[in-house]
Amino acid sequence: MEYLDNLGQKAVAARYELQKLSTEDKNKALRKAAAALTASAERILAANDKDSEIAAAGGMAEGLLDRLKLTPERIQSMAEGLLQIAALEDPVGEVMESFERPNGLHIDKVRVPMGVIGIIYEARPNVTADAFGLCFKTGNTAILKGGRDAAYSNAAITEVIREALCAEHITADAVQLIEDNDRAVTAAFMKLKDYVDVLIPRGGAGLIRAVVENSTIPVIETGTGNCHIFVDEDANVEQAVSIIINAKTQRISVCNACESLLIHEKIADKLLPALGCALREKNVEMRGDERVRELIPDAGKATEEDYGREYLDYILSMKTVTSVDEAIAHINRYHTKHSDAILTRNKEHAEQFLQGVDSACVYVNASTRFTDGFEFGFGAEIGISTQKLHARGPMGLKELTTYKYLIHGDGQIRG
Amino acid sequence: MEYLDNLGQKAVAARYELQKLSTEDKNKALRKAAAALTASAERILAANDKDSEIAAAGGMAEGLLDRLKLTPERIQSMAEGLLQIAALEDPVGEVMESFERPNGLHIDKVRVPMGVIGIIYEARPNVTADAFGLCFKTGNTAILKGGRDAAYSNAAITEVIREALCAEHITADAVQLIEDNDRAVTAAFMKLKDYVDVLIPRGGAGLIRAVVENSTIPVIETGTGNCHIFVDEDANVEQAVSIIINAKTQRISVCNACESLLIHEKIADKLLPALGCALREKNVEMRGDERVRELIPDAGKATEEDYGREYLDYILSMKTVTSVDEAIAHINRYHTKHSDAILTRNKEHAEQFLQGVDSACVYVNASTRFTDGFEFGFGAEIGISTQKLHARGPMGLKELTTYKYLIHGDGQIRG
Repeated sequence: MEYLDNLGQKAVAARYELQKLSTEDKNKALRKAAAALTASAERILAANDKDSEIAAAGGMAEGLLDRLKLTPERIQSMAEGLLQIAALEDPVGEVMESFERPNGLHIDKVRVPMGVIGIIYEARPNVTADAFGLCFKTGNTAILKGGRDAAYSNAAITEVIREALCAEHITADAVQLIEDNDRAVTAAFMKLKDYVDVLIPRGGAGLIRAVVENSTIPVIETGTGNCHIFVDEDANVEQAVSIIINAKTQRISVCNACESLLIHEKIADKLLPALGCALREKNVEMRGDERVRELIPDAGKATEEDYGREYLDYILSMKTVTSVDEAIAHINRYHTKHSDAILTRNKEHAEQFLQGVDSACVYVNASTRFTDGFEFGFGAEIGISTQKLHARGPMGLKELTTYKYLIHGDGQIRG
Repeated sequence: MEYLDNLGQKAVAARYELQKLSTEDKNKALRKAAAALTASAERILAANDKDSEIAAAGGMAEGLLDRLKLTPERIQSMAEGLLQIAALEDPVGEVMESFERPNGLHIDKVRVPMGVIGIIYEARPNVTADAFGLCFKTGNTAILKGGRDAAYSNAAITEVIREALCAEHITADAVQLIEDNDRAVTAAFMKLKDYVDVLIPRGGAGLIRAVVENSTIPVIETGTGNCHIFVDEDANVEQAVSIIINAKTQRISVCNACESLLIHEKIADKLLPALGCALREKNVEMRGDERVRELIPDAGKATEEDYGREYLDYILSMKTVTSVDEAIAHINRYHTKHSDAILTRNKEHAEQFLQGVDSACVYVNASTRFTDGFEFGFGAEIGISTQKLHARGPMGLKELTTYKYLIHGDGQIRG
């Protein structure tokens, strides 16, 4: 694919330029890009209108149309996102470790940009600006492949940013958009290993699976969350209801929402009637095992399949268990290694759960909804990693960097 | 593949057991496994004889036969390897960061085992014990797929270790060997994503490429090294000759050996005649550009292809350049991101090179041969990573771990 080769070569050339920029240069460029987005709102909105019309004519569902739609406020918030990134500390250049060997070699482990980052995402035009900002701040060049339904919007946003970079005498190839929306091009992009150092899919489970299965570039999996809450026998019932309602209903469409509830059988009769009322009030459909259905008569029956599902909807699967160990085993079988919580006043049980559950984030007495770069204080987030290589959980700026060893000698040879 | 599913399930079950072991339990088991290897030398040698006979009858080349061959001394050194690993610090459990959020959530970032590590390697039976030791010490279970030519040897070594674990009341499934050597099984193993957290190929470029292209499990690429040395205009000539001879000839078959030499044109006439003599003495075939051939008349002609090759042989490609920038650009085009060195007395040039060359290890005035877990002081090594995700350069015990966030709250919900 000559088109992609060309893009890849430009991205690699640009990364060596970006690497030479000072933090202040990068921040200034981010602020200029933010101002350019605001100033070019009309142009971006016109492009977005085209996308929205085509999508509506094609019968796109309401929820997806809303994600696609830009407004002056949403453009403003894209610009503010870039300003926030400009205000964050630059992780590049940090000396992570320094040591001297007996032979006199001095070794520094230094944080450096990854190089070229590929990002594949769905029809959410705001990701375009956001991904650029995070990659640029960390000295990486970005090759973006957005959903085809947002093609005009993404092209307009990318153009505006590239123009702003040019005006700052920075290579526009710091961010490139793949504008050919042929599926074969996307498939070939996933094999662009000679140029792209890491590929990050941002989107639903289907997109992520396709990238994992087809990419030869190292991938960071993000975002699928079948999050569990386990209510232990000696949980505070009132607190438990509050946390469960928050984790399930505060925002249903996100990866850190609770999808499945485990209840210690000894607390079931104290918890479930009150919880049933609260969930009913929020219109949450409950699907439980036999004991759950005894205590919440309007609950449906939970199947094996329910326990493995990320509903992203007003549905909650529920199951009683007889021990912390049973809860841990169930979670490790069905979860996506994202976020899981125990609600308990028993410190030993809490420890057992923290150690036993194999997730990026394991909570005691708090809502799973806190798994988030901003809530963790990272100031930004490229996604939530659910794999174990490189980064786990919320990924901020540091997680977009790697390191290299710089070794100073004075003629050392190996004996 | 029921066979692999079964192996995967056992590995996952075993990882939860390993996780509960104390450092002392793990060290004790490693020492017992070491003793068992020594005590079972005859049994292992008998198995190795079978492999060697079959391989020799099949016409295996001398070098490969030597890698396959075990001796009492080699078994002893496998045992000593396990003792060395037992003596190393256990990285698991380290609290890497700890922070409190304004809402009172307390977040600990804690180092934990990866889980299940898959290792695919060639017909080197010593890797079996070594891979087990490194994975076990870091609380990981290992699924090993060794080269079919070492099938009997690997089976014997694995059995001895499993028996030693059993005798210590530790699950034998801490290490499992894939004994079905059908290619389809290996291919399916690379897709065993539901059970295996990371896959590490150890071997030649072909093996690594096959794993990268076919695995859906996250892979850490190791080992291919097209390492460069650039002799800058004001290098110390005598030191340069000593470093180049060391990097090229001290051990030719390893990934950190020098394969390509760049020479600043201003130092060519001072360096090359002396270097030519020294390389000739070591029987190194030289392949250079026109200027090199003028100064070393018996040097052959270097082609484009030469510059990209990892010879692992007594051959060196050589090219003159006009600047540090040209050297950096050439290296970044042809290298494998492993190890590259500049020889110079000019601090500015050294800095420029350290920043510009995109390798795991970048050296000033030292041999590339130091890229090695032992030479770096890590005490052990599973390989040299040449990718940028997770780990770069020599991978020791820490690099076989990941982290998770443990979050303590007292009822926090997200607003």
